[in-house]
Amino acid sequence: MERIGFIGLGIMGTPMCLHVLEAGYPVTVYNRTAVKMQPLLKAGAAAAPTPKAAAQRADIVITMVTDTADAQQVIIGEDGIVHGAAPGSVVIDMSTISPSATRMIAAELQQKGIDMLDAPVSGGDSGAMAGTLAIMAGGKKPVFDRCLPVLQSMGKTITHVGDQGMGQTAKLCNQILVAVTNMAVCEALSFARKAGLDPDLMIEATRNGAAGSWQLANLGPKMVQRDFAPGFMVDLQQKDLRLALETAREMKLPVPGTSLVNQLFLSCQAKGEGREGTQALIKALERLAAHS
Amino acid sequence: MERIGFIGLGIMGTPMCLHVLEAGYPVTVYNRTAVKMQPLLKAGAAAAPTPKAAAQRADIVITMVTDTADAQQVIIGEDGIVHGAAPGSVVIDMSTISPSATRMIAAELQQKGIDMLDAPVSGGDSGAMAGTLAIMAGGKKPVFDRCLPVLQSMGKTITHVGDQGMGQTAKLCNQILVAVTNMAVCEALSFARKAGLDPDLMIEATRNGAAGSWQLANLGPKMVQRDFAPGFMVDLQQKDLRLALETAREMKLPVPGTSLVNQLFLSCQAKGEGREGTQALIKALERLAAHS
Repeated sequence: MERIGFIGLGIMGTPMCLHVLEAGYPVTVYNRTAVKMQPLLKAGAAAAPTPKAAAQRADIVITMVTDTADAQQVIIGEDGIVHGAAPGSVVIDMSTISPSATRMIAAELQQKGIDMLDAPVSGGDSGAMAGTLAIMAGGKKPVFDRCLPVLQSMGKTITHVGDQGMGQTAKLCNQILVAVTNMAVCEALSFARKAGLDPDLMIEATRNGAAGSWQLANLGPKMVQRDFAPGFMVDLQQKDLRLALETAREMKLPVPGTSLVNQLFLSCQAKGEGREGTQALIKALERLAAHS
Repeated sequence: MERIGFIGLGIMGTPMCLHVLEAGYPVTVYNRTAVKMQPLLKAGAAAAPTPKAAAQRADIVITMVTDTADAQQVIIGEDGIVHGAAPGSVVIDMSTISPSATRMIAAELQQKGIDMLDAPVSGGDSGAMAGTLAIMAGGKKPVFDRCLPVLQSMGKTITHVGDQGMGQTAKLCNQILVAVTNMAVCEALSFARKAGLDPDLMIEATRNGAAGSWQLANLGPKMVQRDFAPGFMVDLQQKDLRLALETAREMKLPVPGTSLVNQLFLSCQAKGEGREGTQALIKALERLAAHS
């Protein structure tokens, strides 16, 4: 059975790593804040003092960190995975980071004979806990096939979407869809409310037709009930939109709707709503108007 | 059984009127272009020379015309319904027109003791032909209840959404949702294409999660296949967005996403794509970039 290294035990990484353990894999963990390793050690994982040390004891090393710089640090930085992993081993980066940075990291790993998949996830901490994440994986097909059983312990819909970087690209497409569709829901609900139309009736009358979306069915009622608990946090959505906008800029691709949502979310961040759920976007719109 | 008048036999009105006939109601039709009455006359309807004359022979008069001015003309204009309808009769305007104009028309009808429902539809000509339209109705509940059997002959999801004008308001909310969600799909697909990600794989990997929508599942593949046949025409979408933006302006409500889609669709209209399906929105985005 493949030996697994797992780097990054945050709100997503911890439940994902537990699922890998439950599937029977031997796991060695590393986390910058050491105390967060405790739940995993209790569940049977071994601890490593550095990403390099975790990689020395693993055939497949999974990383689940916050941003591009964090992934670069734990994979190719000082004491990083690249310095411990054996030729023929695999790094699976499940963080959401830049597609172009992903290809640079993959190239450095390849020089040591280490393979890489970029396999970011969708579904939030509830999906991580339930083991029902959507996983979008980029990399060589044989490497994907080798890693599939491990991915299946964490996720449900697992799609091989192309070469290295394409997992991250698919994830950014996912975030563009999520963000702009959210704006659609916010504008329709603001319109209904301002015009005196019962917003629950509006949702009921529109959700099963061409206007329907996951965002309308799931975030719409939360907006109506003024329930702004996350779900998926504004600050994390903004991080992903920044990656999407940076990548679009690299490609000289205008994405005006995505840019607009990114701007409106800045109002949420300015008002201290960055740790609320993305349904707080409706408050940015409301601040533009005179809702009574 | 209620006697029905039916005014406006276009691409929507003709199949809707046929369903009313099939349900067994006696129907009198009027259409500005008289030749379009022929299919209905063959199916058993009577013809009237004016909206007034059709109303004289009906208990419930349905109107299905293009825009606000057309509805005003056939309902309260010269030889309009108001001059022929008896007190206690009902006008059901199933066109998509201005909510504020709807309330003005309803007030004029009320002075003659004529009731009114605004009951715009969603589902396009395919929904009209199948008798599966979504119908969003505004007006008094007893009037709605009285007219429900007639509406059921034309539609499937029939929702009473409030007082007069609220049917139109709900329809504009529907169009805001449809238009901005469409933009989400266009930007994600443009991003995928530019980044070299297989767009079909992108749709497959995202459609069942938080990014999912009717627009993604139905218009996304058409965009990939470069199939721009309508569905729902750009020109009609633009008419509805104009109504939404005018109504939002009356309410002093900023709807920046809706406004942006309206602007992008202008590019489609400028390029002679007004009679294509709304999935042609992706071509407006592509013209902003250098797709190879």
